[in-house]
Amino acid sequence: MPAGNRAQAESLPITDVSIEDSFWSPRVETNRDVTVAHQYDQLEANGCLSNFRRVAAGEWDGFEGPMFIDSDAYKWLEAASYVLANHDDPDLRDRVDEVVDLVANAQADDGYLHTYFQLVEPEERWTNLSFMHELYCAGHLIEAAVAHYEATDEETLLDVAVDFADHVDNVFGPNGHNGVAGHEEIELALVKLYRVTDEDRYLDLAQYFIDARGQASSPLAAELANIDGTGGADFVHHGRRAAEGARNHFLDDNGEYDGSYAQDHLPYREQETVEGHAVRATYGYTGVTSLLQEVEDEELWAAMQRLWENMTEHRMYVTGGIGSEHEHEGFTEDYDLPNDTAYAETCAAIGSVFWNRRLFELTGDRKFADLVERTLYNGFLAGVSANGDQFFYVNPLETNGDHHRKEWFYVACCPPNTARLLASLERYVYARGTDGEALYVNQFIGSTVETNLGGDQVSFTQSTDYPWDGETTVEFTHDDPASFTLRIRVPEWAENATLTVNGESSAVAPRDEYTAVEREWVAGDEVTLSFEMPVEALRADPRVRADAGRMALYRGPLVYCIEDADQSVPVESITVSHPELFEPVHDPDRLGGVTALEGTGTAADLDAWSGSLYRSISAVERAPVDVVAVPYYAWDNRDSGSMTVWIPAS
Amino acid sequence: MPAGNRAQAESLPITDVSIEDSFWSPRVETNRDVTVAHQYDQLEANGCLSNFRRVAAGEWDGFEGPMFIDSDAYKWLEAASYVLANHDDPDLRDRVDEVVDLVANAQADDGYLHTYFQLVEPEERWTNLSFMHELYCAGHLIEAAVAHYEATDEETLLDVAVDFADHVDNVFGPNGHNGVAGHEEIELALVKLYRVTDEDRYLDLAQYFIDARGQASSPLAAELANIDGTGGADFVHHGRRAAEGARNHFLDDNGEYDGSYAQDHLPYREQETVEGHAVRATYGYTGVTSLLQEVEDEELWAAMQRLWENMTEHRMYVTGGIGSEHEHEGFTEDYDLPNDTAYAETCAAIGSVFWNRRLFELTGDRKFADLVERTLYNGFLAGVSANGDQFFYVNPLETNGDHHRKEWFYVACCPPNTARLLASLERYVYARGTDGEALYVNQFIGSTVETNLGGDQVSFTQSTDYPWDGETTVEFTHDDPASFTLRIRVPEWAENATLTVNGESSAVAPRDEYTAVEREWVAGDEVTLSFEMPVEALRADPRVRADAGRMALYRGPLVYCIEDADQSVPVESITVSHPELFEPVHDPDRLGGVTALEGTGTAADLDAWSGSLYRSISAVERAPVDVVAVPYYAWDNRDSGSMTVWIPAS
Repeated sequence: MPAGNRAQAESLPITDVSIEDSFWSPRVETNRDVTVAHQYDQLEANGCLSNFRRVAAGEWDGFEGPMFIDSDAYKWLEAASYVLANHDDPDLRDRVDEVVDLVANAQADDGYLHTYFQLVEPEERWTNLSFMHELYCAGHLIEAAVAHYEATDEETLLDVAVDFADHVDNVFGPNGHNGVAGHEEIELALVKLYRVTDEDRYLDLAQYFIDARGQASSPLAAELANIDGTGGADFVHHGRRAAEGARNHFLDDNGEYDGSYAQDHLPYREQETVEGHAVRATYGYTGVTSLLQEVEDEELWAAMQRLWENMTEHRMYVTGGIGSEHEHEGFTEDYDLPNDTAYAETCAAIGSVFWNRRLFELTGDRKFADLVERTLYNGFLAGVSANGDQFFYVNPLETNGDHHRKEWFYVACCPPNTARLLASLERYVYARGTDGEALYVNQFIGSTVETNLGGDQVSFTQSTDYPWDGETTVEFTHDDPASFTLRIRVPEWAENATLTVNGESSAVAPRDEYTAVEREWVAGDEVTLSFEMPVEALRADPRVRADAGRMALYRGPLVYCIEDADQSVPVESITVSHPELFEPVHDPDRLGGVTALEGTGTAADLDAWSGSLYRSISAVERAPVDVVAVPYYAWDNRDSGSMTVWIPAS
Repeated sequence: MPAGNRAQAESLPITDVSIEDSFWSPRVETNRDVTVAHQYDQLEANGCLSNFRRVAAGEWDGFEGPMFIDSDAYKWLEAASYVLANHDDPDLRDRVDEVVDLVANAQADDGYLHTYFQLVEPEERWTNLSFMHELYCAGHLIEAAVAHYEATDEETLLDVAVDFADHVDNVFGPNGHNGVAGHEEIELALVKLYRVTDEDRYLDLAQYFIDARGQASSPLAAELANIDGTGGADFVHHGRRAAEGARNHFLDDNGEYDGSYAQDHLPYREQETVEGHAVRATYGYTGVTSLLQEVEDEELWAAMQRLWENMTEHRMYVTGGIGSEHEHEGFTEDYDLPNDTAYAETCAAIGSVFWNRRLFELTGDRKFADLVERTLYNGFLAGVSANGDQFFYVNPLETNGDHHRKEWFYVACCPPNTARLLASLERYVYARGTDGEALYVNQFIGSTVETNLGGDQVSFTQSTDYPWDGETTVEFTHDDPASFTLRIRVPEWAENATLTVNGESSAVAPRDEYTAVEREWVAGDEVTLSFEMPVEALRADPRVRADAGRMALYRGPLVYCIEDADQSVPVESITVSHPELFEPVHDPDRLGGVTALEGTGTAADLDAWSGSLYRSISAVERAPVDVVAVPYYAWDNRDSGSMTVWIPAS
């Protein structure tokens, strides 16, 4: 769907892009062949699909899973639809058809659809927006339906989504009940639905939900006053302790309503800092930014810029991960970024990618595409195992070996979220100017493209060994010359970038910008961007106390870590001093083929510490040791062991 | 009271020791003149004393405070009794008499005494040992009564305690109900009561409670199965959320009973690691070690040694503080010692001091007296403000300026605990061998002593400027010669210790030992121990990840910190490299007179970090800066600001 008439750019449609990349293609294929199939099995095994069947059969009770489990099916449908958009797979198509039927058959006559309430408490619809995720599930249904419609041209699921959206529109809004979703998602989804249907009421409803959030008299606060959170059928199915926890998320230490968990503490337009649950936050900001692609609102836009700066300059891990604590799965305070107890939920990284794509589209600003890159290659990609069937919910930057990916989760938001992002990776590589006069190359991912730019057919290939090598080449293949500006992102960290056009050096735009070559492009034209990717080390702002006295190795877009599996001594014993002591070494046998950083650090003899937890520095001895760092995304794919991104500096 | 017939040593009675010390006397006097009076006012203001009055008046309901609030009065009585032991104060004596009368009048005819149950749920006595702290309060009543009896020779409060103890003995034990206290305290108190009364049944009951803990079929588990924790009058008075939290402390992630919070997961004799709530743990170990002073039990003793080693080598802050997390106020895993989120409850440090005093008495081993010192001068002493009227519950080793002492707490365990330890500091300075042939000088605190050693009257003074200076002199003043071994502790960290006896050099025992001079001592004999106290820096075991890349400055027994109040730049910007760059400078005007460590470090320009949370180390600039470190115990006595013990190393 187009990005909206106020945006500078729109991402190319999935169907215009075919990824052929030595780094990403294996991951996209594993996602397609393993992950999506694995996730269908999980939906069947954990009762998610049974819930729909029970509703369709007119049964009562028998609900399984947490109250938002419908969304797992919708996210799977969305991922599977993206797969089908570019890849014919009759078996997958059959499964998608089956699940679409299950969903359609479960929908109530009035359009309502939420298997928990339909099976357990049919009279209690819409009475508990804080916890029960009806609007959240509605949003995921809509996203799935839009993806399904765009992939298949079939309207079966879209009709279900439209009916549910119309039901929501009847219940809530200026002429209905006052309501705010306890977990944002409906807002961004309604903008998507508006773009596909061209029905203004969906955009208006998105605007309503966005403006309703954070008002002085919150509908969630009113609700919570009537819910004691201690029992009742509404909590039977996901455990009383979980419900108590959920309720307490909305209460401050004095037991008073505090909506910041769901960004309901202030209207978005007044918010100064990113607060609360990080997935809720980024989904909400994605909704707002989607709206801003359609309607002018300087105040909201100023808020988005403030929040982005607060997040990136004060509350974000070096991996692009966000969310500093487990309790609220969210943001805490500026510079509070613990490594071992980091939350950095995979879904929050994904939410940040969603948000930054919209921000890029709205502005054409490179910094947002930079952050998409950082998050994709680090905080996001760590979320899925190399084999594609195990997932991180939580992504610490340091561990003593007790944190591992799992096949599934009771609260299973992350695995299908991972699947839908990998299955739609095409959306993140390129964009075109909404004026039809620019083509953006945002990510360096090998691919072939056939698209339309201002009425011209444009086709090209991108070839690269990124992220191992800092060079990428775009070669055009369309026969009719097309005139536009080719804008290739020069990452903020890139050193000594050079550009050649048809073999001749060309000016590279200043750092922090895109290259911009405006000309008539035709088959055979070839552009190559090159930059150096030395091994470097980062320091964190000294106010990030968790990283004080430490450094993190990186090269190009990749943040590195040290894992026990690569060392001759325990990770905890290692210090490093200078990135110059490391060199990149590509090893096709390590972790399926990575460029490792091999170098020298020093190690303490841990056995010598036996019996004393603290000792005079004069009694501490360290010896040189070989150290091997590997990309953070690849960690925990071998034997269990310690890992750290931020290595103590010596 | 004597330490028991199996102990190597017994601490000198409070009444034998009079502290006259430039460092401690002002603190002891502030405790006596300000803290004890302040705390009485709090007991009156927060309803603690009213509860006793209501019970005595036969009222129902009207209970105020948390369910264990009686213990605040008992701990205050204990502290006040210690004050009265050495210091005549008619006003304080009147107040003590008043509170003793209140307590006595509130006691039920059958000996029971717990104002919550007496006022609110008289039928529910002893049904909720997990949360309701009846046995805990009974223990504190006994400790207060023993202290009151020893200070005044009056039996009014002791009679109350004996009646309650007899009631407990009737209810629990081999011939009564199976019971375990949800919070240890009764065990150590019963041993104290046994020593004062010489009644074996109290020792037997202590043994019973100690052995009953951690059995496969826990009475607490049985109780919890009958308590839903969601309502009922028993939770009205301290808030439902607190009750939920309390109940959850005894449940694992699957909702199954896990007694480790109260050390009820295994019998003490099988425990390998210190687990759970740190105050419960140390009170429990104190009870066990008290028992071991009376009865032989190699298995229990082996467990105490294991637990001490686990605590000191794996789970203790450099300040002697213990408890790594807020959730359970307790221990977590080996090497998990975060600085900013440290719990290190003041009461837990006090519990550790209690335990280590018993361990020293049992063994005569210097290492336990060393840990008493480390904890007294650091983790404990930080708990009270210089003015004596504000208290830390939680003692982080790093803060961004948002952690401050408070006048009181709803859960007010720490302030009266601080008061009773400072009011009985005399107990920690000296001990005598139970064979009557040794005098131990454990702490370097100026004082005059008149005591009995194996039938001989022995008197002496200790003079010192410790902890600012590493020298202390003992001069005997008794007229009749007495033959014994004088054992002066040489701290484990002391460098180049020398000893002179009557001006002549004497051999100093090997490091890790006491000096030991055996002779006939008489008035005029003078012994001086001297050792160097250079500025040093500590590293933590590399597995303590929170301290990786950092060092802590110390000198003598004092751990230092850097606080914003002493620096020209923010604490967060500072790094240090070598302790040799610091020198001790005594400043009578700083913090009431401290030896500060003045030196040079480097500082980053925090303003230059604006806009980038992470940057290449090549872009990080640091400039030399003056750095002043002050003793950790003194922090947060000036303007609010950041503080850290572990300073990033450059």
